[in-house]
Amino acid sequence: MAAPRILDAVNSPADLKVLTYPELDILAQEIREEIINTCSENGGHIASSLGAVEIILAAHRVLNCPDDKLIFDVGHQAYAHKLVTGRLAQFASLRTYGGLSGFTKPEESPYDAHPSGHASDSLSVAAGYAKAAQLNGSGQKVVTVIGDASLSGGMAFEALNYIGQAELPMVIILNDNMMSISRNVGALMKHLGNMRADNRYRKSRDAAQEALESHGVLGKTLLDLGKRAKESAKQFFLASSMIFESLGITCTAPIDGHNIRELEDTLRLVLQTEGPVLVHVVTKKGAGYEPAEQDPERFHGVGPFDIATGANKPKKPAPPAFTNVFGDALVKEGQADENVVAITAAMEGGTGLKAFAEAFPDRFIDTGIAEENAVALASGLAFGGKKPVVAIYSTFLQRSFDQIIIDCALSQANVVLAIDRAGLVGEDGATHHGAFDLVYMRTIPHMRVLAPADEADLVNALHTALALPGPVSLRYPRGAGMGAPVPEEPQMLEVGKSRLLREGNDACVLAFGTVAYRALEAAEMLAAEGIDVRVVDMLWAKPLDEEAILAAAETGCVITAEEGAIVGGCGEGVIEVLSQHRVQCPVTTLALPDRFVRHGSVPQLLHEVGLDAEGIATSIRKALS
Amino acid sequence: MAAPRILDAVNSPADLKVLTYPELDILAQEIREEIINTCSENGGHIASSLGAVEIILAAHRVLNCPDDKLIFDVGHQAYAHKLVTGRLAQFASLRTYGGLSGFTKPEESPYDAHPSGHASDSLSVAAGYAKAAQLNGSGQKVVTVIGDASLSGGMAFEALNYIGQAELPMVIILNDNMMSISRNVGALMKHLGNMRADNRYRKSRDAAQEALESHGVLGKTLLDLGKRAKESAKQFFLASSMIFESLGITCTAPIDGHNIRELEDTLRLVLQTEGPVLVHVVTKKGAGYEPAEQDPERFHGVGPFDIATGANKPKKPAPPAFTNVFGDALVKEGQADENVVAITAAMEGGTGLKAFAEAFPDRFIDTGIAEENAVALASGLAFGGKKPVVAIYSTFLQRSFDQIIIDCALSQANVVLAIDRAGLVGEDGATHHGAFDLVYMRTIPHMRVLAPADEADLVNALHTALALPGPVSLRYPRGAGMGAPVPEEPQMLEVGKSRLLREGNDACVLAFGTVAYRALEAAEMLAAEGIDVRVVDMLWAKPLDEEAILAAAETGCVITAEEGAIVGGCGEGVIEVLSQHRVQCPVTTLALPDRFVRHGSVPQLLHEVGLDAEGIATSIRKALS
Repeated sequence: MAAPRILDAVNSPADLKVLTYPELDILAQEIREEIINTCSENGGHIASSLGAVEIILAAHRVLNCPDDKLIFDVGHQAYAHKLVTGRLAQFASLRTYGGLSGFTKPEESPYDAHPSGHASDSLSVAAGYAKAAQLNGSGQKVVTVIGDASLSGGMAFEALNYIGQAELPMVIILNDNMMSISRNVGALMKHLGNMRADNRYRKSRDAAQEALESHGVLGKTLLDLGKRAKESAKQFFLASSMIFESLGITCTAPIDGHNIRELEDTLRLVLQTEGPVLVHVVTKKGAGYEPAEQDPERFHGVGPFDIATGANKPKKPAPPAFTNVFGDALVKEGQADENVVAITAAMEGGTGLKAFAEAFPDRFIDTGIAEENAVALASGLAFGGKKPVVAIYSTFLQRSFDQIIIDCALSQANVVLAIDRAGLVGEDGATHHGAFDLVYMRTIPHMRVLAPADEADLVNALHTALALPGPVSLRYPRGAGMGAPVPEEPQMLEVGKSRLLREGNDACVLAFGTVAYRALEAAEMLAAEGIDVRVVDMLWAKPLDEEAILAAAETGCVITAEEGAIVGGCGEGVIEVLSQHRVQCPVTTLALPDRFVRHGSVPQLLHEVGLDAEGIATSIRKALS
Repeated sequence: MAAPRILDAVNSPADLKVLTYPELDILAQEIREEIINTCSENGGHIASSLGAVEIILAAHRVLNCPDDKLIFDVGHQAYAHKLVTGRLAQFASLRTYGGLSGFTKPEESPYDAHPSGHASDSLSVAAGYAKAAQLNGSGQKVVTVIGDASLSGGMAFEALNYIGQAELPMVIILNDNMMSISRNVGALMKHLGNMRADNRYRKSRDAAQEALESHGVLGKTLLDLGKRAKESAKQFFLASSMIFESLGITCTAPIDGHNIRELEDTLRLVLQTEGPVLVHVVTKKGAGYEPAEQDPERFHGVGPFDIATGANKPKKPAPPAFTNVFGDALVKEGQADENVVAITAAMEGGTGLKAFAEAFPDRFIDTGIAEENAVALASGLAFGGKKPVVAIYSTFLQRSFDQIIIDCALSQANVVLAIDRAGLVGEDGATHHGAFDLVYMRTIPHMRVLAPADEADLVNALHTALALPGPVSLRYPRGAGMGAPVPEEPQMLEVGKSRLLREGNDACVLAFGTVAYRALEAAEMLAAEGIDVRVVDMLWAKPLDEEAILAAAETGCVITAEEGAIVGGCGEGVIEVLSQHRVQCPVTTLALPDRFVRHGSVPQLLHEVGLDAEGIATSIRKALS
């Protein structure tokens, strides 16, 4: 039997408050082991979570949650928070179907203050909480934890601008793990880097430590001064970041994010000042797990791995991922045409652009987490004669809806929007599923929307998108491809022309995207039952192939299938085409339901929403009955 | 006959280059007269345009447009630009149907570098141009003009962050007209304000002026230093704004934005530095027209006015605008419930929130042009027990699509989204029509979507939205109400229940929003022809009133009508409901077409798209024939 752990006795943050500092250090170690163990099985955002353990312990010792509010930006660094807020027993279920979410989620726990998942929104949410607390006169304390990378998102700036002006009493913990600096995105990051390189960084840090170690005196001085305290604090806490100071937010000198006592003392102090304070905390991403410390980028979000070596556990052999097929195809397009420029918003690896970035460093742009800029920047490049390809995950591209309309579509700019992670993404769940892109792209005038069903479609779609004038989007899912051979030379696709995958006259599935392959499987199942199902790879979500739709109606049974939101989706579009032509034919629309889909493995989720082969077959049977 | 004007001889920017400074001053005066004359007839963004005359003249003397690129943020300050780029003859048609756009528009002129209209995107577009020029090796110069208010938009920060890091050679003219300072939005504005209050502001300005007056020496020093020039420039041009300097963008000391020579000399100088430079220009909004100088906020965007007094020209008597009905109703709700909080994104007047702001200053928040923060902030307020109402124009709320999904809908936060300017807005045209909100709201799970048809609906919709749990949106158009009496006490509406406006059995119009009244008019016309048309005020775009839809199908002729995008709109939703119920009935969907609608008066545009009473009547006749 294992030795009793301190962690096992922690049922809520209150239990943290009775621990000594040496006990807390042991607890931090136990938490790390728990995180490493679980992530080695389930995968997860291990590096960020390992880096934030001490921050979370210190914050929970100082705050009284859930009355006070501890808010996490993105939320993937909050595993330690889950472990000390009564979720230890379920922690092995992290990111699994029916299990704990990989992000904070109010439905899961009263300690989770908001549903996180998308970067840079925590400051706004925290500002809302702080303003509400002010109006309520509740004295509720609000602390938010945000990583340096998230600061490149414009909405973080908008929030800081408001927080500074409104002088909201709240504490912003800047978890500076120097991650983004390696990627060298954004002048702000460079500025943070300069700060670190600066002698004052060390000095101020040492000074802060020293002062805090004997902080009884300082704290007293600070608090005794009342109204003037803020000024004192400002002078004590060196103006380490001009940006925050310019925005009216007091900043501390950088402190060690793995020293619980230092964190705790600083938090206690700043929580008593009147306006907003930013506590600059320096952490090591992946702290406490050698392989993650060595390669924090790979360990940002990982699948199951071997604990001893950090090596990925062998996966079932599978065809290369769509992301990689896209990345390779883009390199070829870049070789053939020097006007091709690739843009990512802090997802160079995730969107498969590493090879392009290496091959054409001048033609590769990483804007940081700044999707709005990425898309509008692309329009400027297009006006300047370039052929920009912006690769962003479906769920994050929502941030650029306005820029796609105003900066790209209205001017019919030659911008290609490569929408990765379209459809269900699996373990990351509701905030990360790419559910809406088909709807929000379809509604935009001048936009052409491609939904490739396999690797060949994808490569041809990219080629076609680059050749066509005006804005074109193409979407493809997370994970392995279908194993379809990639054409030697990419082909131009005919606009609005579908591809027949299987003939059949009892019913017709009009499939948008990779769901076509599951429809094929369903057709094979039904063939065994003597039902003869046609399957069409629609390829274009806009314009729709009206001919194929009308032909489908001749079977007397049309089924549409898409991995996207049902309301406003392609299914509605198909029905509208039939209605316009006054063709009367029953249509069954298979799509993501009008609710947020939870997390779990993609096959589990596809089964839940009826978009796996079995579900499609069942729907066809029902439609024919 | 009037004396010949210098303006009449200006056919392109080249003609500006031969003018003397005294001639330029006369020209500036002539341009102002032209702007005042035209705007007094057509309305327009007069104050901003009067403020930017000298900036535009100086920029065009220094640049070689259209080879070089002069980019305007929002673009409503660009009237002088239109007048000196060959559009004087058409200028009287400004903002009229078939006439010149009130914004820059590439289709209109090769001198218009991008389709502007939404704030804060110019820096991204300019960065794209600058990067393209770099890749092309074209030596093309890029200058962008952005107002201080636009800097509060997060995407401006995203762009600055990229521009500074990429060290792109481009010039950003910060047109600081001290407008936003009066509204006191954002710490950044406060910071700019502090700079102005600072002695250094005057001093640096004087110094800059002095130096520039004899800038031969300085310029030489600067340019001779080559690589080191940037540092020198930095030292000469005082670091007037820490924020920009932190982001790696060199800033000039503030200069007089109405002194052409000073502007021109500064621009020539900074265009020869290597990296990005921000030229801080101080202007007076409404400069040269007394009434606009006195009340720049009212003259930001005005209707026709009397030149002598500045008073609005009398309009046809009309019922109070929806905006005001909404504003008054919100004050009442605020009186009844102290949890109601109102949020605007720099549109206090435009969204009718002035009365609320005066009545409940603590419960009123103006985030500046920062729609993303406004919506996510609202979610935080809702989590904190408040009932936030975010009032934003439909077209600008597009910026918050992601925040509506992730921060509001996913957590089912009690956020009310009051969508003003929904549908066609008239003279501002394509960038300002509220075309997409019905689509992007309808597709979001948990979202309830109201489309009131008149004042009574609106007041009841607001009351209902505040009472219902979870996120609710309501949309209403620009301009006068329908004259429907406002209920003494607002009523709770039944969720998803339509309102029958007119009985009839030959056909049924299912109308979403104020178009219901035009459908009523159409029904009256048709009644005279013996056609008996039912008109339903659907009220809810989500959930749809299935009962009313099925009943409509019993007439054998269904017409849907909405002032919103056709693809993914309510019409598709109605057809989908019928399809689901396997009801076979021809449906005609009237909506905004799948293209961007131009500018003009609302009646002209409604006629063009077939959504006026006549158009609706024609469609019904056709459907019945």
